[in-house]
Amino acid sequence: MSQDNTPDEIPGAPSEKTRVRRYNWLAKYDRDTINAIIDAGMVCQVGYVIDGTPYVTPTNHWRIGDYVYWHGSSASRMLKSQSAGIPVCFTVTHIDGVVFSRAAFNHNVNFRSVMAFGNAKLCCEEEKRHALQVFTDGLAPGLWQHARKPTEQEWKATKVIRMKLDEVSAKVRTGAPIDDEDDYLSDSWAGIVPLQLIQLKPQSDPRLRVEIEIPDFIKNFRYGQ
Amino acid sequence: MSQDNTPDEIPGAPSEKTRVRRYNWLAKYDRDTINAIIDAGMVCQVGYVIDGTPYVTPTNHWRIGDYVYWHGSSASRMLKSQSAGIPVCFTVTHIDGVVFSRAAFNHNVNFRSVMAFGNAKLCCEEEKRHALQVFTDGLAPGLWQHARKPTEQEWKATKVIRMKLDEVSAKVRTGAPIDDEDDYLSDSWAGIVPLQLIQLKPQSDPRLRVEIEIPDFIKNFRYGQ
Repeated sequence: MSQDNTPDEIPGAPSEKTRVRRYNWLAKYDRDTINAIIDAGMVCQVGYVIDGTPYVTPTNHWRIGDYVYWHGSSASRMLKSQSAGIPVCFTVTHIDGVVFSRAAFNHNVNFRSVMAFGNAKLCCEEEKRHALQVFTDGLAPGLWQHARKPTEQEWKATKVIRMKLDEVSAKVRTGAPIDDEDDYLSDSWAGIVPLQLIQLKPQSDPRLRVEIEIPDFIKNFRYGQ
Repeated sequence: MSQDNTPDEIPGAPSEKTRVRRYNWLAKYDRDTINAIIDAGMVCQVGYVIDGTPYVTPTNHWRIGDYVYWHGSSASRMLKSQSAGIPVCFTVTHIDGVVFSRAAFNHNVNFRSVMAFGNAKLCCEEEKRHALQVFTDGLAPGLWQHARKPTEQEWKATKVIRMKLDEVSAKVRTGAPIDDEDDYLSDSWAGIVPLQLIQLKPQSDPRLRVEIEIPDFIKNFRYGQ
């Protein structure tokens, strides 16, 4: 797979493009790790090219099996261009901490990220409707039944893109700093400051009718789970 | 500036490429808002093109005045390609909450994001060394003095890229869901679940010499401030 393997490199990259090069000992190619990182959030960054210019658009994503999906307005520049099946780069990144080392060169960040290459594909009407229902219920089981269903007008205004997870890799850094052996005798402090994305209590819309209580599926909602 | 302005569009985009199109009433073009979003985190996503393929790489960033910087290994594919001055798309995204509406079509996310277009430029040796010191002390004032300075070998292994913030825009969504007027009579719950990136207590490296205490600049460290 790799042309310049080093002893420390993690094997298993599905393609040369997907092979993690920098800090390649942090690479993960198993699907469970990759899926867990994708599923741990609902915002991805999609990279694509229009007229030679790179664009990166943050957007909601979700996963069904080996496919990732994102959606948007039928009028959006991103979705219009991607509907033609152009190459995209799909990434998800979570920041887990700041790593302070004994040497300036070794400061780092703990993170989990996924990078996938593929071709965007516009979903047909049937798959679009199915995929959006799965997205909504995946966010909070019961949410699809709870809220008003889209009108035909609203359906028309929405496109869904999917991409197969073929050329995909993950990169995960956890734990303590790694310093040069000599530096462990240093007087400098080293350690980590963990970061965590937490959710606060649900806040009802100020315009909500007073008799409406917070439903259980909202009380049970856990972001990224 | 815009060829198809609508009454609701926020004016002030520095270029057509940078003009926010979708949900353009969420656009912010003032530099204070843009800088605050960039400075509120230390991980950006950089989009670039190699041989027609889009790449998106999460990486650390920092800002000095009207420039954003990122760094990496001299051997990295990203930095090698960007050193030639290619067009890049720099984005920063923070997720602030999940917005549940009375209609499936109106579910949303509260977020702050910045998108900037420009050409990557490799910093010269002097600017590189200055910029990395500013980055380190910007993270935690005093950190540059505290840790071992880079060796010449380490300096050589590091490149710094900068990009001027010219073509830049921000997009910010806050607050409650916005539903169609008819839907406000609905029996469905609507509201938000706020999300927040918090930091936990500093954890000393298990290999830290026991007599070394957590320095004040770590105790005072606040991510994104």
